[in-house]
Amino acid sequence: MRATVLHDVRDIRLDTVDDPRLVLDTDAVVRAVASCICGSDLWPYRGENPLNGPTRIGHELVGLVEQVGSDVSSVAPGDFVIVPFAYSDNTCAVCERGIQTACLHGGFWGGPDREGHFVDGLQGELVRVPFADGTLVKTPAQPKEALIPHLLTLADVFPTGHHAAMCAGVATGSTVVVVGDGAVGLSAVLAAKRLGADQIVAMSRHEPRQELARRFGADEVIADRGEEGAAAVREIFDGIGADCVLECVGTDDSMKQALRSARPGGNIGYVGVPHGVKLHVPAMFGRNLGLKGGPAPVRAYLPELLQDVWDGTIAPGDVFDLTLPLDEVAEGYRAMDERRAIKTLLTV
Amino acid sequence: MRATVLHDVRDIRLDTVDDPRLVLDTDAVVRAVASCICGSDLWPYRGENPLNGPTRIGHELVGLVEQVGSDVSSVAPGDFVIVPFAYSDNTCAVCERGIQTACLHGGFWGGPDREGHFVDGLQGELVRVPFADGTLVKTPAQPKEALIPHLLTLADVFPTGHHAAMCAGVATGSTVVVVGDGAVGLSAVLAAKRLGADQIVAMSRHEPRQELARRFGADEVIADRGEEGAAAVREIFDGIGADCVLECVGTDDSMKQALRSARPGGNIGYVGVPHGVKLHVPAMFGRNLGLKGGPAPVRAYLPELLQDVWDGTIAPGDVFDLTLPLDEVAEGYRAMDERRAIKTLLTV
Repeated sequence: MRATVLHDVRDIRLDTVDDPRLVLDTDAVVRAVASCICGSDLWPYRGENPLNGPTRIGHELVGLVEQVGSDVSSVAPGDFVIVPFAYSDNTCAVCERGIQTACLHGGFWGGPDREGHFVDGLQGELVRVPFADGTLVKTPAQPKEALIPHLLTLADVFPTGHHAAMCAGVATGSTVVVVGDGAVGLSAVLAAKRLGADQIVAMSRHEPRQELARRFGADEVIADRGEEGAAAVREIFDGIGADCVLECVGTDDSMKQALRSARPGGNIGYVGVPHGVKLHVPAMFGRNLGLKGGPAPVRAYLPELLQDVWDGTIAPGDVFDLTLPLDEVAEGYRAMDERRAIKTLLTV
Repeated sequence: MRATVLHDVRDIRLDTVDDPRLVLDTDAVVRAVASCICGSDLWPYRGENPLNGPTRIGHELVGLVEQVGSDVSSVAPGDFVIVPFAYSDNTCAVCERGIQTACLHGGFWGGPDREGHFVDGLQGELVRVPFADGTLVKTPAQPKEALIPHLLTLADVFPTGHHAAMCAGVATGSTVVVVGDGAVGLSAVLAAKRLGADQIVAMSRHEPRQELARRFGADEVIADRGEEGAAAVREIFDGIGADCVLECVGTDDSMKQALRSARPGGNIGYVGVPHGVKLHVPAMFGRNLGLKGGPAPVRAYLPELLQDVWDGTIAPGDVFDLTLPLDEVAEGYRAMDERRAIKTLLTV
C-alpha cells in the first residue's frame, strides 16, 4: 500500500510499504476513505519535535472496515468507521473514567503497540487498528459523500475543540475567548456555541479565519494580541475577562494570552500540545485561575458528537479549505506550513 | 489597644497601638472575641516572605460589632460576626462571580486599603473593617462559648479546605487524596467528607494529626511520601490514582506529590500559598490533569458553611489544639513553628 512517511525536516513522501495485516484477534484492518493533516503534524514536519529516522505519520481517518479479528464484535467488514487519534481498549480503569487517550493498554498511531507490533500512521491506504471494539465507532449507515469531511473531523479536530471547551467548563451562559485561529481554535468556537456559550470572542488576524469563526458562532473577533488583545477582551467582558478561555495553540505566548484573558476564578482549557509553556504559579493562584487540558478523549465524546454531525446540527468539516488526493500529501503539508490552508483533507 | 506586630524574623510582640476608628461610612469597628494563627503567618515569621519593617499581622477573627458607619445596614453594634481573611465590597463584577478574594475594591488585613487608609491585622483587640456590609457575616444569634472555635475556623481555615475540595471538583462518590496534614489539610478532609466523597486518603506522618484526619473522615492514612507515597495512593485507587487531590501545603514537593497522586483526568485543588512551585506542563497535559486554586473566597462560602457549623453538623474547630491568651501570642507562633501545635487559638 501507499503510506505517508516523514523522512526528514520538511521531507515528506508517499512511499510504498507492506500492507498491514491482522495480528491480534482484537484487531481490525480499515481501508481509508479520507484522512487529513493536523496542526500537530507540523511540529515534527518543521523539526520542532525530534525525529528518529523515517516515521509513519497521520492520526485522523475515516474508512471502511476490511477485515476483523475473531474477537471483534462491534464492527464488521463494510462498516464505515471513524478512527480516533488514539486507540484504546475502552474497558480499563482509565477508559472507564473517560480518558481513553491515557488507556492503560492503548497508544498512538505510527509506532509499535505495547506488545511491540507495528501500528501504521493514518495518512495511508490501510491500517491495522488495535482494540477495534474499543477504538472504532461506526456510523448509523453508509454516509453520503458530502458528510465525509464532517465525519472526518470527529477523528480529532472537532472533539479536540470540544475538549478545550469541556476542560474550561463551558456551559449555558458562559462567556468564552478562543485563543488560536487554526482548525482546532475554529472547532473550539463551534464547540463552545454548541455547548450554549452566551458570548464568544475569537482572537484572529486572518480574514478567512475570522469569517469562519463568525460562521461557527463567534460574536466578536479581536485581531490584537499581547496586552492590547487582553485589554480588548477584558473590555468586552465587564472589564474583568471571560469565564472560559480555550487555548488552542500550545506556545508560551498563546498560554500567556489565555491566562491574561480569563476573569478571576475563570478556567483555561488547553489542547494545543504544549511547546515551551512556562506557568507563573503565584499569579495563577492570586487570580484563582483553573487550568485543564490534554489529548482529547475522542472515543468518549464520539457517540454524542457523531449524532449532531449525522443529523446536520453542526458542520465542523467547514474547517477544510483544501482537498487533495493522497498523492499530493506533500503539497498539503506545504500549504498548511505556509498558512495557505487552514486544514487539508486527503482523499484516497 | 494591643495588637500583634511582627518586628523581624521570629520577633513577634504584642504592642500597644492607636485604637482603630471609623474612617469611611461603609466601615465598621469590630472588637475581637477570638483570633488565631494561620500556617501562612509562618511564612513571614520564618523570613520566607520579605519583611519591610514592623508589620501588623493576623487575618482570622470573630468578634462583636462595636461601631458602624452611616452606610452600613447589614450589621449593628452588638452583633457577633465572622471576619473573613479578605475584605470585599461583595458587589463588584468579580465578587458577583464569587471570587471575593479578588474584589476590585477589596484587600487583605494589615496594610493600607485602596484609598490609602490603614487597615489593622486581626491578631489584636479591635479592627476597622472596610466594606462592612460586603465583608462581615453575622451569626443567627449570640453563640454559646463552645461554638466559638468552630465559628472562628470560618474566617479562613475551614473554607480554605472547602475551597481545595471545590477547586478539585469533589462531589458525591469522588475518590480523594489530601496532601498536607496541617490545619488546612485536616479541614480539607472534613470538607471532602461533607461534600460526599466516597473514599478519602490523608497523607500524614504525625500521629495526633492522623487521628484527627480519621475523625474528620479519612478512610486511610498514608505516612509514605514521594514516589512511595504516590505508589501507595495509586494502589488504593484501582492502580491509577484519585479523582481529586487537595494540595494544602504550597511547596514544590507537595505539588509534585499531588500531581503524582491524581488519576489521568483527575483534578488538583490547591490552596497552600505557592512557594517555589514549578509545573512540568507537558506531563500534566499528557495525563489530562486539571489544576485550580487560590485564596478561598470565604465570603461566598460563609452562608452555607455557617449553617452547618451553627447546627452542629460539622465541628471544624477541632483543629485547634492550643488555646492561649493574646498576651502569649509569641508562644503561639513558636508552638506552630516547632510543630508542637496544629493551630493556635488566641482569646482576647
